[in-house]
Amino acid sequence: MPELRQDPATQEWVIVATERARRPEDFVRGARPQPAPERAGLCPFCPGNEALTPPETLAYRRDGQVNGPGWWVRAVPNRYPALVPEGSQDRTEDVRLFRRMDGLGQHEVLIESPDHRGTFCLFDDKQVEEVLLAYRERYLELSKQRWARLIIVFRNQGVTAGTSLSHPHSQIIATPVVPINLRRKHELAVRYYDSAGRCLYCDIVAQELNVGRRIILQTEDFVAFHPFASRFPFETWIAPLRLQASFALITVDEAKRLAKVLKTVLAKLYYGLNDPDYNFVIHTAPVGDEHKEYYLWHLQIVPRLTTPAGFEMGSGIFITTSLPEDTAEFMRGVRVDAGPREQAAA
Amino acid sequence: MPELRQDPATQEWVIVATERARRPEDFVRGARPQPAPERAGLCPFCPGNEALTPPETLAYRRDGQVNGPGWWVRAVPNRYPALVPEGSQDRTEDVRLFRRMDGLGQHEVLIESPDHRGTFCLFDDKQVEEVLLAYRERYLELSKQRWARLIIVFRNQGVTAGTSLSHPHSQIIATPVVPINLRRKHELAVRYYDSAGRCLYCDIVAQELNVGRRIILQTEDFVAFHPFASRFPFETWIAPLRLQASFALITVDEAKRLAKVLKTVLAKLYYGLNDPDYNFVIHTAPVGDEHKEYYLWHLQIVPRLTTPAGFEMGSGIFITTSLPEDTAEFMRGVRVDAGPREQAAA
Repeated sequence: MPELRQDPATQEWVIVATERARRPEDFVRGARPQPAPERAGLCPFCPGNEALTPPETLAYRRDGQVNGPGWWVRAVPNRYPALVPEGSQDRTEDVRLFRRMDGLGQHEVLIESPDHRGTFCLFDDKQVEEVLLAYRERYLELSKQRWARLIIVFRNQGVTAGTSLSHPHSQIIATPVVPINLRRKHELAVRYYDSAGRCLYCDIVAQELNVGRRIILQTEDFVAFHPFASRFPFETWIAPLRLQASFALITVDEAKRLAKVLKTVLAKLYYGLNDPDYNFVIHTAPVGDEHKEYYLWHLQIVPRLTTPAGFEMGSGIFITTSLPEDTAEFMRGVRVDAGPREQAAA
Repeated sequence: MPELRQDPATQEWVIVATERARRPEDFVRGARPQPAPERAGLCPFCPGNEALTPPETLAYRRDGQVNGPGWWVRAVPNRYPALVPEGSQDRTEDVRLFRRMDGLGQHEVLIESPDHRGTFCLFDDKQVEEVLLAYRERYLELSKQRWARLIIVFRNQGVTAGTSLSHPHSQIIATPVVPINLRRKHELAVRYYDSAGRCLYCDIVAQELNVGRRIILQTEDFVAFHPFASRFPFETWIAPLRLQASFALITVDEAKRLAKVLKTVLAKLYYGLNDPDYNFVIHTAPVGDEHKEYYLWHLQIVPRLTTPAGFEMGSGIFITTSLPEDTAEFMRGVRVDAGPREQAAA
């Protein structure tokens, strides 16, 4: 069973996932795992191969049997989970200062399409919308677990962003702890709320809209921008324009419109930067705090363009090499209605 | 001039280094900077090419002229600095919530050897010792700057660890702010000190020694171990055995013995994992706190073996795939008195 350990110096938690353990020898260079080859026939996420995954926790299909083909979105437990839905919530200190608990939680893969070679940002609007609604459905289900404290939805695109399987998929991890860095972000937000009487994150979004120069696009419900203090070049936030602490509160109509925004932003990266690897993650309130007025969920996209190194590790200060004003301007100029060839010619 | 920006949500600072700026177009895949080719004749860090660097701030040489050859360790300002020693310490908020200040500070390169093809962990003991003493000397000098708040010494080894030049070198960055995450670590340490009456970090080291299973090696003054809650496989800490808040307080004799420990640990990684890329960084007290009793400086080594991805980004929780007990055992078993071929045969 995996294990959670709390760093006594920072109070941050670490997962020791022994079920996905590698032996020390496996880290010898050359023996490192390579990206899965494109053998669609053996891909565990492809239709027809449903038996290669644990039983599904969600599937959108019109016809067909549970754990059979016919789905267009499907969620399954990760075969190599970081956390598993068994074990105790008790925290123990067998040795003083070294606190641990069982690796209790859930780790799911959300297969975004039956199409092995699909590209998320080039999906139909409808398909992205279904993926977002599946995120919400799994959030709501996982948040009912007695141990669930935080539910993280994320997507790793490309080998340098940490993907090992190329079939389009997202991941969802439900944790039994609230990470200290999230607590601290929320402490600051609460303090601001108690002082200003408003949501800090809403005020940040409002100021970004005032300034305007870092905005990529704005719709009725959402805004996408490169934040003032971006840590990474082309780091992008997508945030709702009305107070909503948790992604789980998104309506079907909002999901529809968010799908368009998300697709557009990712397609701008795809065409503008020639299909960079990236991660995205949905920052949302902890379980039970969905209706708080001091926080705003947001989706953060980080293309893997730079390599944080020793300085970032030592200081927590990130060095970025572009002004977000400039990258936002670049993004605004990228057309997504034309293919890459038309882009290059433009 | 570079700029520092404070994230209004986390109070973390970001450096926008406009002097090393790349245009957005430069991030297009294929156009990314490649590692510098091995043309030793043009390497700005090689002896004879001193004119290719800004004037030196330190050099250990017996004979020869300032900014000429004859040195065995040399420090120079980085030609593409993240921070520069000019500008104001004033913080301004032209737009409410968006606080900025000038990118005041200093960014130096410490050239560790005249030998372009040298490998740090295979240097003579004496050479590593001289490098450590040069770190200390530059620390002491930089800490005299009125604006200096934190001095970070770090080393990036290999392209995946963020190096762009292969000639052996470390870097030193002096910042005009104390990062919030360091403040928070220190707040926890102060609280522990006020409660237990002892240094938290010293107690952590003592507990690691009690447990023993994660220790790599121990000498009269130092211990090297894989911490209980390691964030990365093979993450290694080297810490002094007596209370010392700042690396700047290290004596010449201690530097001599630290050199041996550092070389041995890095050589174990080199032979054991076949020369992995890595970062190391010296965590030390902020300027002015060198004599505090609640902190212990330590050197952290992180080989680049895994790829933190969306989950880590969203949660601050790192997933590691090895028990530090196992990796420490592996490290203890790696012989460094034999070459790699002998290792493989053993």
